[in-house]
Amino acid sequence: MSTLEIPVLIARKRDGGELGREQLLGFVAAYLSGEVEDAQMAAFLMAGVIRGFTRDEAVTLTEALLDSGERIDLTGLRGPTVDKHSTGGVGDTTTLVVGPLLAAAGCQVAKLSGRGLGHTGGTLDKLEAIPGLRVDLAPDELHDQVERIGLAVAAATQDLVPADKRLYALRDVTGTVASPALIASSVMSKKLAGGAQHVLLDVKAGSGAFMEDIDEARALAELCVQIGEAHGRRTGALVTDMSQPLGDAVGNALEVGAAVEILRGERSGRLRDLSVELAAAMLVLTGIEPDAARARVDQLLGEGAALETFREFVTAQGGDPAVADRPWEVLPAAPIVAEWRPGAGVVAGFQCRRLGELAALLGAGRQRQGDQLDLAVGLEVLPRIGDPVADDEVVVRVHARRQEDADRVLAELDGAVQFAQGSVPTVPLVHAHVGLAGDPSAASPA
Amino acid sequence: MSTLEIPVLIARKRDGGELGREQLLGFVAAYLSGEVEDAQMAAFLMAGVIRGFTRDEAVTLTEALLDSGERIDLTGLRGPTVDKHSTGGVGDTTTLVVGPLLAAAGCQVAKLSGRGLGHTGGTLDKLEAIPGLRVDLAPDELHDQVERIGLAVAAATQDLVPADKRLYALRDVTGTVASPALIASSVMSKKLAGGAQHVLLDVKAGSGAFMEDIDEARALAELCVQIGEAHGRRTGALVTDMSQPLGDAVGNALEVGAAVEILRGERSGRLRDLSVELAAAMLVLTGIEPDAARARVDQLLGEGAALETFREFVTAQGGDPAVADRPWEVLPAAPIVAEWRPGAGVVAGFQCRRLGELAALLGAGRQRQGDQLDLAVGLEVLPRIGDPVADDEVVVRVHARRQEDADRVLAELDGAVQFAQGSVPTVPLVHAHVGLAGDPSAASPA
Repeated sequence: MSTLEIPVLIARKRDGGELGREQLLGFVAAYLSGEVEDAQMAAFLMAGVIRGFTRDEAVTLTEALLDSGERIDLTGLRGPTVDKHSTGGVGDTTTLVVGPLLAAAGCQVAKLSGRGLGHTGGTLDKLEAIPGLRVDLAPDELHDQVERIGLAVAAATQDLVPADKRLYALRDVTGTVASPALIASSVMSKKLAGGAQHVLLDVKAGSGAFMEDIDEARALAELCVQIGEAHGRRTGALVTDMSQPLGDAVGNALEVGAAVEILRGERSGRLRDLSVELAAAMLVLTGIEPDAARARVDQLLGEGAALETFREFVTAQGGDPAVADRPWEVLPAAPIVAEWRPGAGVVAGFQCRRLGELAALLGAGRQRQGDQLDLAVGLEVLPRIGDPVADDEVVVRVHARRQEDADRVLAELDGAVQFAQGSVPTVPLVHAHVGLAGDPSAASPA
Repeated sequence: MSTLEIPVLIARKRDGGELGREQLLGFVAAYLSGEVEDAQMAAFLMAGVIRGFTRDEAVTLTEALLDSGERIDLTGLRGPTVDKHSTGGVGDTTTLVVGPLLAAAGCQVAKLSGRGLGHTGGTLDKLEAIPGLRVDLAPDELHDQVERIGLAVAAATQDLVPADKRLYALRDVTGTVASPALIASSVMSKKLAGGAQHVLLDVKAGSGAFMEDIDEARALAELCVQIGEAHGRRTGALVTDMSQPLGDAVGNALEVGAAVEILRGERSGRLRDLSVELAAAMLVLTGIEPDAARARVDQLLGEGAALETFREFVTAQGGDPAVADRPWEVLPAAPIVAEWRPGAGVVAGFQCRRLGELAALLGAGRQRQGDQLDLAVGLEVLPRIGDPVADDEVVVRVHARRQEDADRVLAELDGAVQFAQGSVPTVPLVHAHVGLAGDPSAASPA
């Protein structure tokens, strides 16, 4: 790419034009080689954020990111390879339930996860609450473990989509994060590099999600599905509620304990319900009829097969398998547990992002990358929107390391939970299905 | 400015918002101190190019640029201090006529000029065609010469609006040049730093100008006038035709010779006419009635007072004063002069920018900064739009260093001049007056 051509391509996007595949691939490649400067990429990204990228550009951007690094090769595994990804939320521990469920159903789950940042938790942090469990699996280890027990969860290496890391760091400081095409290409490049043939996305909408608006979240889900299908992967998405914490628990050990209780059949609620929805949707992606998929998931959960796979998974990654039997004895516990009883009313809404930030403030999450976590602390948020609360009922339990942390969070909870008098409608758990069988927007399998 | 605040300000412009004065001053200052990175400024500029800047933002941007460097102090000079600036065109040598005219009229003209780039020439290059003339005057020299003879022309130093140089270099490579507010703040910051109390802009419109559209050029002129007035300078603008070369001559020595002939009363045409218009408009800005201003200019030109001032100016800056008497003997001449006679027709239009590029190709202009010029070469473009041309009439004379250069340009002239049969309307020389007395859009003097 000549240095004279670069400003011409930027100007084309500035003026609302579309870049061809070769131009866009060349532009990103020139950025990675240093020929396109950070300032030029930033100007290009800003033009794209304001003018928009086309579907074809989003597909090509994903290809450009994917081309920058290594790809995990999962061909040769016996079952269908699957990967589930959540855009991130509060109290969202579905991976720890869905992973074992799908592995028990005969799928191969090789999951590359990240760490939490800001108000959302990360699967790796949660898993490390299990004593002994390690997540730094080499590619070969990951492959072998998946072949053996159907499930492995490991940290993504620096070699996986390095262009995404560079671009994200640039977007973060230049006000260019908020673009559906940039978000979708970032998410999908990592899923495609992960190697699974079936990709299911859980796109969150609501006050605890990146996208607060359901229609925007649905558009993002559709774009992700289109990108996945264009790259030859069977891809689907659910758009789900994140106007309130998904599970009661917000905090690493607390969330692992909640997931184990679901696998043990000892806990109901929205986290369990969504885990079942996601696992069934993934089975549908692999070609199973919806009713049969749901029945299979219920059976695997009910008979303890998913719990058994979870135990094997924990053991394989060096963790204490007793966590599957007596989670609250094995997991770290916070010394202080304070209760918040705000008085009678009906729960009208949550500042869901704020709840995640309060958990982070306790030590459950990071303010910035590299921060050390306290895996024991967090919140339990017990009611959901529409639930009546009695006068002396506990609404939030604060698990803290120090009393002053607990006091500080208790003092802030008033601003994070809204109450009303009279009835308040509940919020649906799943807002939309995208790209799944029976859905009119479903793309045909590649 | 905190590092967290920077992306917030970028996002505000991205979403079409306006930045307050302190925010914008802080943002530019943080850029100059290195706190705001090139990539962040590039994203901000792109957002501004697409979303637009308000008038207040343009005024503040100019202030921010101005604050980055030194200002020439012209207070204490006896007459009204004046500065005329053209946005750049082909065959535009008005400075060499207007400067002496205004000095002869009792104004103080301290002009900081630049060099040519691309298809437009620069006043410094033209002046250097006069043997011996130097343009590297120190600030004190400039001031003293203006005090003595009313006119000095010097190269702008690196200390004058350094932020503009940095920003322009960034805009040039990031597709963010085309913004009225960015262009106006760049132009006006340099005029304001130059210290004159009266600023007249010659904003060009047409195929040889940056702005091809008259309405866009007028909007740019209005913004420049508003910025100047907001900063306490009496400011006006003419929007003038650049759909064809202004003077016949395109090339450094050729343009100096043409200017001298106008000062000697030996040459008429659009270059003379516009020089008179500009000089009269400037006198109007200083408070003289339009009719009296025009009469004064005609008198100074007719009586040779402007020629005399030109001679003093050339002498003061070390040039050969004989250029004022026998320009074609003193100025360098090209060895080859080829004539282009395309046949009978009526001139219908010019690719005016292309004519400038062909002159640059001969050596009269720079393809890139730092290129060495051949001051003798260039074009003479004799007819104007609407003029009939006889069968064997010379339309263009090519002054070249080598025959092959002349042949190459002759071969390309067909694509740069259009002919028609039948009559073609002439193009007005002045499209609009902005901020001048009697004009409804005139801003009130500060």
